[in-house]
Amino acid sequence: MFDKAGETVSRGAQDGAAKLLVGIDIGGTKVAVATAEIGGRIVAKRKMPTEVEKGPQYTIQKIIALVRQVLDDSGAARPIAVGVGCGGPLDPDEGVILSPPNLPGWDAIPLRQILEDEFRTYVYIDNDANAAALGEYRFGAGVEASNLVYITVSTGIGGGIIVNGRLLQGIRASAGEIGHQTILRDGVRCKCGNRGCLEALASGTAIARRAREALASRPNGRMMAIAGGDLQKVTTETVVQAVREGDSVALEIWNETIEYLSIGVANVITTLAPDMVVIGGGVTEAGDLLYAPLRQAVGKRVFLVPLDRVKIVSPKLGTDVGVVGAIAVALQHLEGKG
Amino acid sequence: MFDKAGETVSRGAQDGAAKLLVGIDIGGTKVAVATAEIGGRIVAKRKMPTEVEKGPQYTIQKIIALVRQVLDDSGAARPIAVGVGCGGPLDPDEGVILSPPNLPGWDAIPLRQILEDEFRTYVYIDNDANAAALGEYRFGAGVEASNLVYITVSTGIGGGIIVNGRLLQGIRASAGEIGHQTILRDGVRCKCGNRGCLEALASGTAIARRAREALASRPNGRMMAIAGGDLQKVTTETVVQAVREGDSVALEIWNETIEYLSIGVANVITTLAPDMVVIGGGVTEAGDLLYAPLRQAVGKRVFLVPLDRVKIVSPKLGTDVGVVGAIAVALQHLEGKG
Repeated sequence: MFDKAGETVSRGAQDGAAKLLVGIDIGGTKVAVATAEIGGRIVAKRKMPTEVEKGPQYTIQKIIALVRQVLDDSGAARPIAVGVGCGGPLDPDEGVILSPPNLPGWDAIPLRQILEDEFRTYVYIDNDANAAALGEYRFGAGVEASNLVYITVSTGIGGGIIVNGRLLQGIRASAGEIGHQTILRDGVRCKCGNRGCLEALASGTAIARRAREALASRPNGRMMAIAGGDLQKVTTETVVQAVREGDSVALEIWNETIEYLSIGVANVITTLAPDMVVIGGGVTEAGDLLYAPLRQAVGKRVFLVPLDRVKIVSPKLGTDVGVVGAIAVALQHLEGKG
Repeated sequence: MFDKAGETVSRGAQDGAAKLLVGIDIGGTKVAVATAEIGGRIVAKRKMPTEVEKGPQYTIQKIIALVRQVLDDSGAARPIAVGVGCGGPLDPDEGVILSPPNLPGWDAIPLRQILEDEFRTYVYIDNDANAAALGEYRFGAGVEASNLVYITVSTGIGGGIIVNGRLLQGIRASAGEIGHQTILRDGVRCKCGNRGCLEALASGTAIARRAREALASRPNGRMMAIAGGDLQKVTTETVVQAVREGDSVALEIWNETIEYLSIGVANVITTLAPDMVVIGGGVTEAGDLLYAPLRQAVGKRVFLVPLDRVKIVSPKLGTDVGVVGAIAVALQHLEGKG
């Protein structure tokens, strides 16, 4: 841990300089770093490839250099706090990264300690879905919500839950894994170990898998043409494009996706009765093909929560969601200190 | 609303008398009323039949008289606050009872107003499952938990969720309806309007229905004997007794019940990662036939929350859960006022 007495002295010494937060968004392919004012306005921003194949030490040193650059860009010597969003699993209490699938080699990396030693300030780490939930809640779609559920439908399905304005962490910070609800009792095995998880049925990976399975017996139609005749090149985008072109097999796959998602979203609404459900991630690029049918399907499942009061919306932060979320992680912890 | 200035004066006048709370538990067949100290210890307790057929006015006047009796029993003139637990739907913000199925005729009854006018003190109302959740959290199984889910498996399946020590109300106080998660996509129609709800599959009513359906094609075996040959007399108790006697059809029904419940409980754990899930209600009288197999089945569904840290337990308050819950409702609101 860094020296908190030293921290106070040095904060005094920084008088006159802007009070800035740093957000670091660590993904499997790229890292984004930004400085922001306490109100959330981004001051400076930079990106770099993660180069995950070079190992955590290499990447972390590059991240530190990038943070120094954005601090320079912003005319600040040292941030008030640093927030980090990173693929899980990780331990937010200890600030340790615990072998995320998208960061091979990041095994028990004490990232908080490393960054605290480097920047001599508070560092807070949370998983990327929780960070995104906080980011959208504070600075994006959810600024007027008090209970918010964030769901990201991407290669996997992740989530974060805000209750009364604060992130719900739960036992060992494991709450919010909305993608691992059981939707089909005897569904396909999920990589988590369960069967029929929402993620195993409706993630981008699962949509593509179901499309390929359907094409194995019905190989004619738009999807194969779009994929250039190569079954392995069928993706969620293929399905969505074929739906727009009126392909019936693609429509079946897509309708099934909407139904799976609607059960997951309806269960969460029935359980938590949130003001807002923000649904983001690559699969939501389907736009109108996703949100409108999903709202309709959720309406057939939810009767005890007044759905006219629950907004089901797209995110507002766009590609900045990662860094803004990381900044929101830092802010929530600073406020938590009172 | 009662006069808050008057309240303060009158509290002063009560100096020397014990500071007591009143809890009122209004059920479809009986009403229980108790006084308790702020620490939760019950001082006096009385019960009466609801006599729901005589209408709300009659019952409410009897409740008022019963409250006066327990206050007399306790040597207190007036309580600090009154908490009420009652079947939903109801509006806890307005304190209005909104036609609960178990209280026919209680349509838009402004119960809080009536009781405040009568007792000149704060009155707080919540639904019975939320009250039970708060009761178990404060004074029962959950005293060491911080996030707790309470599930009651009875004629219906209800629930209440405590997050960071406070009841999660959600939009129009509709959160916690765990019984209305979709468990089977194309399952039977639930009376809520959805299909395949946990309640429609695993409540006492649903267990009996599934048993009768199974017996229609396979009428031999222990269940029919226990029910005296009358299919209409087959209940959850019949199923449980027949399971203990080794009946294979009953065992099928029961195993299916455990699987449905395990999906519902696992989904809640995966979403909220609570410290504790308290499962009560008439169906849990099956005891060892329920808790041990349920824990095992949940273990096959939950992989991302460390289950060794999540207690799945029976309630501790027994038949007092209703009044103690009502008292806990009052306490939570008093504290909320800071």
